[in-house]
Amino acid sequence: MASSPPLDEFARIARFFAPLAAPGGLKLLDDAALLAGPAGFQYVLTADAIVEGIHFRPDDPPATVAQKLLRVNLSDLAAKGAVPVGYLLTTALPPAHDEAWLAEFARGLAADQKRYRIGLLGGDSTATSGPAVLSLTAIGRVAKGRALLRAKAKPGDRVFVSGTLGDAALGLAVLRGDLPDLDALNLGTGGRDFLVRRYRLPEPRLELGRRLIGAAHAAADISDGLVADLGHICKASHLGAMIDASLLPLSRPARALIGAAPERRHLALTSGDDYELVFAAPAAARRRLLALGKSLGVPVTEIGRLDKGKGVRIRDAAGREITLDRSGYRHFG
Amino acid sequence: MASSPPLDEFARIARFFAPLAAPGGLKLLDDAALLAGPAGFQYVLTADAIVEGIHFRPDDPPATVAQKLLRVNLSDLAAKGAVPVGYLLTTALPPAHDEAWLAEFARGLAADQKRYRIGLLGGDSTATSGPAVLSLTAIGRVAKGRALLRAKAKPGDRVFVSGTLGDAALGLAVLRGDLPDLDALNLGTGGRDFLVRRYRLPEPRLELGRRLIGAAHAAADISDGLVADLGHICKASHLGAMIDASLLPLSRPARALIGAAPERRHLALTSGDDYELVFAAPAAARRRLLALGKSLGVPVTEIGRLDKGKGVRIRDAAGREITLDRSGYRHFG
Repeated sequence: MASSPPLDEFARIARFFAPLAAPGGLKLLDDAALLAGPAGFQYVLTADAIVEGIHFRPDDPPATVAQKLLRVNLSDLAAKGAVPVGYLLTTALPPAHDEAWLAEFARGLAADQKRYRIGLLGGDSTATSGPAVLSLTAIGRVAKGRALLRAKAKPGDRVFVSGTLGDAALGLAVLRGDLPDLDALNLGTGGRDFLVRRYRLPEPRLELGRRLIGAAHAAADISDGLVADLGHICKASHLGAMIDASLLPLSRPARALIGAAPERRHLALTSGDDYELVFAAPAAARRRLLALGKSLGVPVTEIGRLDKGKGVRIRDAAGREITLDRSGYRHFG
Repeated sequence: MASSPPLDEFARIARFFAPLAAPGGLKLLDDAALLAGPAGFQYVLTADAIVEGIHFRPDDPPATVAQKLLRVNLSDLAAKGAVPVGYLLTTALPPAHDEAWLAEFARGLAADQKRYRIGLLGGDSTATSGPAVLSLTAIGRVAKGRALLRAKAKPGDRVFVSGTLGDAALGLAVLRGDLPDLDALNLGTGGRDFLVRRYRLPEPRLELGRRLIGAAHAAADISDGLVADLGHICKASHLGAMIDASLLPLSRPARALIGAAPERRHLALTSGDDYELVFAAPAAARRRLLALGKSLGVPVTEIGRLDKGKGVRIRDAAGREITLDRSGYRHFG
């Protein structure tokens, strides 16, 4: 085994951790677990960690680091249609993160606790000689038996996404100075700030997720990239997907950057960190879903369909199939 | 603030995180939260992280690292009298922890899942360039309103502890080669192995904790040292404690090591990692508690009493008060 190439995180989880899953753990296919709750309810539990230098940048403001940590977990609750209840937090911090850093970090949490009407339930605080590792377990609740799962998509379902895709990866590219044509494109500070904000402060689609119950068959949040996360729905539902690259919803700044360098389009397909929802619903629900998006101020866009088959295929505006050389974006580490 | 000396973890939690606590978070005074469960039950949630080089040694076997991680969390459930239900796990691992390491780590989890009849509910797996940071959220359940809390001790209550104290710290000292007289004392490999095992594989006192419901008023597990953890009960219950150092229960190997160097006795008072229970119960419950310990094969020892006052005081066999220069053991980092 030592001579094999290293497994990626999905393969590691599948090989070593999935065999350990409890019945409520949904075979670890759903990034969330279900637990019996008070009469008529189930709890949804999810845990995600973020690491400095991988999931956030050392120079990100501590308040937005805290908010990103909380929100990436709330995004998993959104994908289940759950209402947030509370969270537990463990922090492993290097000495450089002093009390001033921690005060700002706590300020970010306090702001989001108000925003999402939740509180801290417990946790642990320790030191590390390495980069900061922040881990959070979020708890939500959902009407019994009604949680959106990845495994319930049906052949013929249409694929929808919320919001716009690729923004977070472009925001990271802005911060890294990886876009030499940025000044020439004249996005304005508004355009830059929008992209950076999308990287630092994802918006968990909680209200949309909650309202997808009864309308969508399956949902996931886009944390590993559209192709990878739709792939999780395909795998769990034993279906294949065909999506139209030309239908991917793009923000105005993303459209400008992709217009200038079309190879950037792959970011909308494969980059993580957007934390939008991808979901499967019958064609008959289309009108209702688009209206729902409008009422919430969150664009909902149909981008493809699911059928018998395997994996995610992509075609361009001319109907030609596109091949990707990687199925997901592994952050900038 | 930048010019103040760094706060310890307790002070950091009190200053920055306690103000964020939800009602179910028990002001973060209990290392656990309560959440409404199915009819007649409450869930107990707790989260603890362990960091390589602080809470475990790089050369500890991966299987026992996994088991220690799980067990330190189960120990918090034990202190509440809760029955374990399941857990979520996040791992941040350096590249040196390859698939062989992970396979052993998963094997340790599998063994303990069987032992404690629980399963994995979810989690996350990521990389770090620093030491391994392992975080776990454990979920237990307890009859509604019956969880043992730290805040319910009463004046006149006696202080009891389970098992023996100081073993884990001595086990760590064995591993570090910090006991120059070890060979001369002739503990045998059995004595050494016992101490090392106490360091690597704590035994969460789940059955004892469960049976303390209705008998004890308050309980905590000893993860930060007897004085610190009894201090948490004192603080939460607004009481003070007086304990007799001469009554502390010691294992045979610990007794030999302390006999040879009496200054080691402070380890039984202040060292963490024993994961025994300290609890407060009325004097009238003494006989029942000692019998309970006997029936479970876990020694239960009365070591002091609680009264109006503040903090933990210690006296020696002659009744003279002992002063400690530190109230808790901060692990070997």
